Amino acid sequence: MVIATRREMERSAAVLAGIRSVLVFDEVVQHVPAESAERAHRAAQAARVDVIVALGGGSAIGLAKILALRSERTGGLPIVAVPTTYSGSEATAVWGLVENGVKTTGFDLRVLPSTVIYDADLTLSLPRELSVSSALNALAHGVDALWAPGANPVSALLAAEGIRMLAHALPRIAVAPGVGPHTAEAAGSDTSGSDPVLGGGGIHGALAARKDALYGAYLSASAFSSAGSGLHHTICHVLGGTFGLPHAQTHAIVLPHVIALNAPAATEAEARIAAALGSRTAVEGLLALRDSLHAPTALRDFGFQESDIARAVALVLPAVPASNPRAVTPDDLTLLLRNAWSGAAPGGR
Amino acid sequence: MVIATRREMERSAAVLAGIRSVLVFDEVVQHVPAESAERAHRAAQAARVDVIVALGGGSAIGLAKILALRSERTGGLPIVAVPTTYSGSEATAVWGLVENGVKTTGFDLRVLPSTVIYDADLTLSLPRELSVSSALNALAHGVDALWAPGANPVSALLAAEGIRMLAHALPRIAVAPGVGPHTAEAAGSDTSGSDPVLGGGGIHGALAARKDALYGAYLSASAFSSAGSGLHHTICHVLGGTFGLPHAQTHAIVLPHVIALNAPAATEAEARIAAALGSRTAVEGLLALRDSLHAPTALRDFGFQESDIARAVALVLPAVPASNPRAVTPDDLTLLLRNAWSGAAPGGR
Repeated sequence: MVIATRREMERSAAVLAGIRSVLVFDEVVQHVPAESAERAHRAAQAARVDVIVALGGGSAIGLAKILALRSERTGGLPIVAVPTTYSGSEATAVWGLVENGVKTTGFDLRVLPSTVIYDADLTLSLPRELSVSSALNALAHGVDALWAPGANPVSALLAAEGIRMLAHALPRIAVAPGVGPHTAEAAGSDTSGSDPVLGGGGIHGALAARKDALYGAYLSASAFSSAGSGLHHTICHVLGGTFGLPHAQTHAIVLPHVIALNAPAATEAEARIAAALGSRTAVEGLLALRDSLHAPTALRDFGFQESDIARAVALVLPAVPASNPRAVTPDDLTLLLRNAWSGAAPGGR
Repeated sequence: MVIATRREMERSAAVLAGIRSVLVFDEVVQHVPAESAERAHRAAQAARVDVIVALGGGSAIGLAKILALRSERTGGLPIVAVPTTYSGSEATAVWGLVENGVKTTGFDLRVLPSTVIYDADLTLSLPRELSVSSALNALAHGVDALWAPGANPVSALLAAEGIRMLAHALPRIAVAPGVGPHTAEAAGSDTSGSDPVLGGGGIHGALAARKDALYGAYLSASAFSSAGSGLHHTICHVLGGTFGLPHAQTHAIVLPHVIALNAPAATEAEARIAAALGSRTAVEGLLALRDSLHAPTALRDFGFQESDIARAVALVLPAVPASNPRAVTPDDLTLLLRNAWSGAAPGGR
């Protein structure tokens, strides 16, 4: 079974041409709605699927995970993941599903892809803005892993290196926007350095930046899979699952606010993030990075209403991880979401 | 089945008391001779062993690995490893066996322990000299992993952190020699800092140093298991398997000589090692560390004869990994082994 959007299938026709599939499923929806998952599950059962190739971002791989979770096949339903974004879903045993406007997530080793193919060429067609948001989302996995319930020395090591790689890759991705595979081929012989469309380094610089970003995304997601989900993801899952906000952009916007809240109570994590970003403090480093990327800064630009804040606070509060380095009050969350909604400075009142 | 030396069983009586074993095997010999392994295998089969608890260093865990490798039990023969040294064997899928004076090694996931219990208390009884040699042996796993055939970004990350942790722990282990478990209990209430027997930090400083060393040993061995064996281990396996030299001391002596040979052709690995050691060059850092520890420096102090060099060269040469950053000639190896034999400066002629 191949899972990919129609657009992704066209882009990656050469990749998919060699696969003899019994089923192609292109209904790939953000946050994996239960209805889509049910349709995919029934189709997979009818076609007696024995392996899934999921090509795309967190939504395509996330759908494959639900099918693996529900499969009654002996030995499970293995997933071959071919990521085209920095979602990191391919490196985690975390699944997510939205039912009746509420996002449920879980951890199950049966959903961890058995094979991952990283090919930076496949990320070149991801538009600049989405590339930046997706890589910031990946960076959030590394940051949140540092204060997640299962945080440990190894997950912290991987997370710090993931943050460092992503921060190193992001500005280079921003100046070298995505190009279609045909453009990439046409530009394949360009070793001359600067390129008017691709920015410094031309196609080779763009590929190098995206390889670094994929590697950083892998490290951060591995840390996240081992350490678990922290306060940042608790908030973002509510915003995505209940209010339909776009995944990557939401993460990019919310992250500095969570760091500002937690940093004073998490000095070791704060120092690790600052060192990985090469900045004086974690918040300063992240804001400087975000500004240099012209990344989104306000949830209201993505459909979140000021009147939604109270309901979001009520949904987030009972789910705040006990491991969070400081207690979180309704007032803390209201202030955090108000600042994230308006685009105000993190921690500001 | 419990595998441990008689001495280790006495020391760790409290640990072993809760285990209902069908078989206790205390014939634990360095480098795992085939005859011991055969006796253990027959005993394990007769007793219908279904799980092995291996308590000790690389020899006890290494013997358990051979039993797991030979087991015809459905689902394999799981190993619970309780390391009391820094051998790192508990974190690798590498097994070794000596037959007719030749050491064979291999990689098989069936020998990777399914559970590892790290308890720094159990390392407190390891004598100072052996603690230092064992931790230097662990450090060699990290270094050799950097130029091993399967070296990759993740293994390099783990290796560098392993080297850093071990270099940080080693001088503290050297000033805080091992104490028996009873001494540890007696000193358990000492939080006063300096201790006449244990050195700076008293029992708490000693424990902290040994925790760091166990963690560094785990990281380095993980990197080694994933990247494979490099030139250093090719040499040491010949010295151990054919000439009966003690494992940990041999590694401590040979390592600077291998770094001196490879460093000019492996600038990235060299820089990583130097950074982890906080020194200008990798060789300088390692020699400074070794000297501060009064670690062994000459193979002739452990029974290796000058007349053995030619045979050792002949055995090492065909086994030099193709991944080694530079070609290795018979003259290179002869010089390296002569310097290691006499204790001369690495790279000197």
